[in-house]
Amino acid sequence: MKLPRYQWSDLARAQQRALFQRPAVADNATIAASVADTIRKVRAEGDAALYALTAQFDQVSLDALSVSDAEFSAAEASLSKDAREAILTAIDNIGTFHRAQQAAPIRVETMPGVVCERISQPLDAVGLYVPAGLAPLPSAAMMLSVPAAIAACPIRVLCSPPDSQGQIDPAILFAARNAGVSTVFKLGGAQAIAAMAYGTASIPKVVKVFGPGNAYVTEAKSQVASDPMGAAQDMPAGPSEVLVIADAAANPQYVASDLLSQAEHGPDSQVILLCDDAQLIDAVLASIRDQLALLSRADTVRASLAHSALIQVDSIGQAIQLSNEYAPEHLILNLVDARERLHDIRNAGSVFIGQLTPESLGDYCSGTNHVLPTYGYARNYSGLGVDQFMRYMTVQEVNPEGLRQVGPVAETLAALEGLDAHKLAVSLRLADLETP
Amino acid sequence: MKLPRYQWSDLARAQQRALFQRPAVADNATIAASVADTIRKVRAEGDAALYALTAQFDQVSLDALSVSDAEFSAAEASLSKDAREAILTAIDNIGTFHRAQQAAPIRVETMPGVVCERISQPLDAVGLYVPAGLAPLPSAAMMLSVPAAIAACPIRVLCSPPDSQGQIDPAILFAARNAGVSTVFKLGGAQAIAAMAYGTASIPKVVKVFGPGNAYVTEAKSQVASDPMGAAQDMPAGPSEVLVIADAAANPQYVASDLLSQAEHGPDSQVILLCDDAQLIDAVLASIRDQLALLSRADTVRASLAHSALIQVDSIGQAIQLSNEYAPEHLILNLVDARERLHDIRNAGSVFIGQLTPESLGDYCSGTNHVLPTYGYARNYSGLGVDQFMRYMTVQEVNPEGLRQVGPVAETLAALEGLDAHKLAVSLRLADLETP
Repeated sequence: MKLPRYQWSDLARAQQRALFQRPAVADNATIAASVADTIRKVRAEGDAALYALTAQFDQVSLDALSVSDAEFSAAEASLSKDAREAILTAIDNIGTFHRAQQAAPIRVETMPGVVCERISQPLDAVGLYVPAGLAPLPSAAMMLSVPAAIAACPIRVLCSPPDSQGQIDPAILFAARNAGVSTVFKLGGAQAIAAMAYGTASIPKVVKVFGPGNAYVTEAKSQVASDPMGAAQDMPAGPSEVLVIADAAANPQYVASDLLSQAEHGPDSQVILLCDDAQLIDAVLASIRDQLALLSRADTVRASLAHSALIQVDSIGQAIQLSNEYAPEHLILNLVDARERLHDIRNAGSVFIGQLTPESLGDYCSGTNHVLPTYGYARNYSGLGVDQFMRYMTVQEVNPEGLRQVGPVAETLAALEGLDAHKLAVSLRLADLETP
Repeated sequence: MKLPRYQWSDLARAQQRALFQRPAVADNATIAASVADTIRKVRAEGDAALYALTAQFDQVSLDALSVSDAEFSAAEASLSKDAREAILTAIDNIGTFHRAQQAAPIRVETMPGVVCERISQPLDAVGLYVPAGLAPLPSAAMMLSVPAAIAACPIRVLCSPPDSQGQIDPAILFAARNAGVSTVFKLGGAQAIAAMAYGTASIPKVVKVFGPGNAYVTEAKSQVASDPMGAAQDMPAGPSEVLVIADAAANPQYVASDLLSQAEHGPDSQVILLCDDAQLIDAVLASIRDQLALLSRADTVRASLAHSALIQVDSIGQAIQLSNEYAPEHLILNLVDARERLHDIRNAGSVFIGQLTPESLGDYCSGTNHVLPTYGYARNYSGLGVDQFMRYMTVQEVNPEGLRQVGPVAETLAALEGLDAHKLAVSLRLADLETP
């Protein structure tokens, strides 16, 4: 295996730019047409389309879409005590961190008698999607269900594709129910997104869909989000990625394992190391080769590493500047002064401080959310949090004193914009106030 | 003028649904193609395209795109003292309310030795769009610039179309500069959005564009937001709307003036009154006819009122339920018990409490933001606030004690998902911890 290794300052500008290019997203005109067709079918035929599409895409004929109590119980019974405890601990930690994100209401008197407020309320109904393509992902069930439950969205629905036996992975079911989501449907792909966005006889209509997925799921989320009658989406999707900044003091085995963790997510995962020490890069390369032999997904890892890069930089300061430009989903600071360097970090989804904090912890159980902006979107989007399951409503209330204060300001500004009725709405009230 | 008046309980289900239908958005394939062409030109030819498109669409040949210090000074000098003071007071009030929205950093120890944090940071560069089609909108300049300045986004750019003399309205310039935005360009339409999303020699590239606009601006925002190399947008757009809930005690003149205020925004504005008292509706109708005679935009108002509705309901409780389903941008509660009723309100952009709080106050100067979700988007989007000019980054740091606590949980979950490298990244570290 050839691992791409570079010295940043030796590269021409164009080469530098090419290195930080994300893997191109495939032209998806075919996918878009197929997804539009699926959405049309689900809207026209409802549940009947869901059964038919599941038979077609998941090769299984279902008796019912929804997961029964008996299936939840069987799922729990099938899991080891270790697995159940690990899931419950992860849910606890994620809950602890996400409960701290609840925004208090705001009430401000901007002028005497002019009160402005901001109230946050849960979204009425949310739809969570948990993929099971490469492997079932109970961690995704936790990361979506915990904030939805803390936000207290009245309707919380989760969809995940059934296996060939018509079952959802038991760890996903156990995680969802214990995280507060017990309305679960055996439904995958674009049909799941369409069903949640528009509703059917069995599936409640939601106002926002959340969660990762393959190209069909991603396209379906984008299509329903562009329809005012559809559902909003959490954030645009892209392949997962990690950027590691390491100095000479870093343990090369740890760095190698962190790069490999990201690479095993999928062949399109992007993995970048920025390091100011040539010897450490040598040692990381050697360790990657050693560890690769231990991994069951070695082919995926090789595919991912082929378009990744180990880059020698002139200084850690330069590495941080490059990272801020790249805007990684995950950023690991394997540096002796990682905590101090944090102040210089911008444009990253989630940051892992020091050599004892591998990305795996954030993926599963430190408490942070693993649904994060990738593909450069860390420049303009935040990772998932309780706030994305809520929305703010502002409120204002003015008493006579307040109207005397703020009313004339509104009249002047309305006149400036030539909006007579805006002015009149204030003038009528002010005139009555002054009439004994 | 015929004003559409209904009794809700007399209507068939389909009629009820039709009444709450938003005005259809015109099929915009032509607009989409024109906007795509504009974006292509701006990306290919940069500033040259901007000068050419401005000559074409705004019929003015500019010497420079950016507003000079001399132009800012001339703008200030041209405004009356009243106008300047009103703008400064509005900026103060908006600032007071928006400063209260700044989120404090979060730091939680989810397990002993496992620290999770959430840090908010301003977006690197933001682009603000202030339309001037029907009338110049200094209020939009304030509503966009104040939160951008409070968020402290390092690069803040504002675009607004030039008039036939190549000038931007003086009130817009005065408002922008005093609200903290002094990089202003004479640029309107899709070309302004394209220039900010991709950057040119003169216009800095931004990561997110904000603000209202016509169908071309809206389409341009949507197109650049769907390109990962473009810029995110604040929220989807739609025609403005108000829903008023009034009881028998409401002053019919005030109700009429509030409905007319919304109607004068544009012919596609939607205006709905829900009231449980037939006599009040009679009085409101009479007052609308009287006030209409005083308005300079009477034609716009008539067009808007034609697809609006005055609806008699059985009870205020029913009105609130209908409002929650409609999800209005602006909701006026002209009720004796408005404050108590607020607890039942969901799905509204901004709420105006009691008979002394007309929508005009929120449009200009109470302190709340007037950039709000319309077209039913109040179900799943929030109005503009400081948080949309920031994004959150999460951080985690684990010490040896923390890794002993949380590491085995991650190992178990990684094994459940079949991700060997994820497990190895933890196991290697745990093993070293136990080696003396």
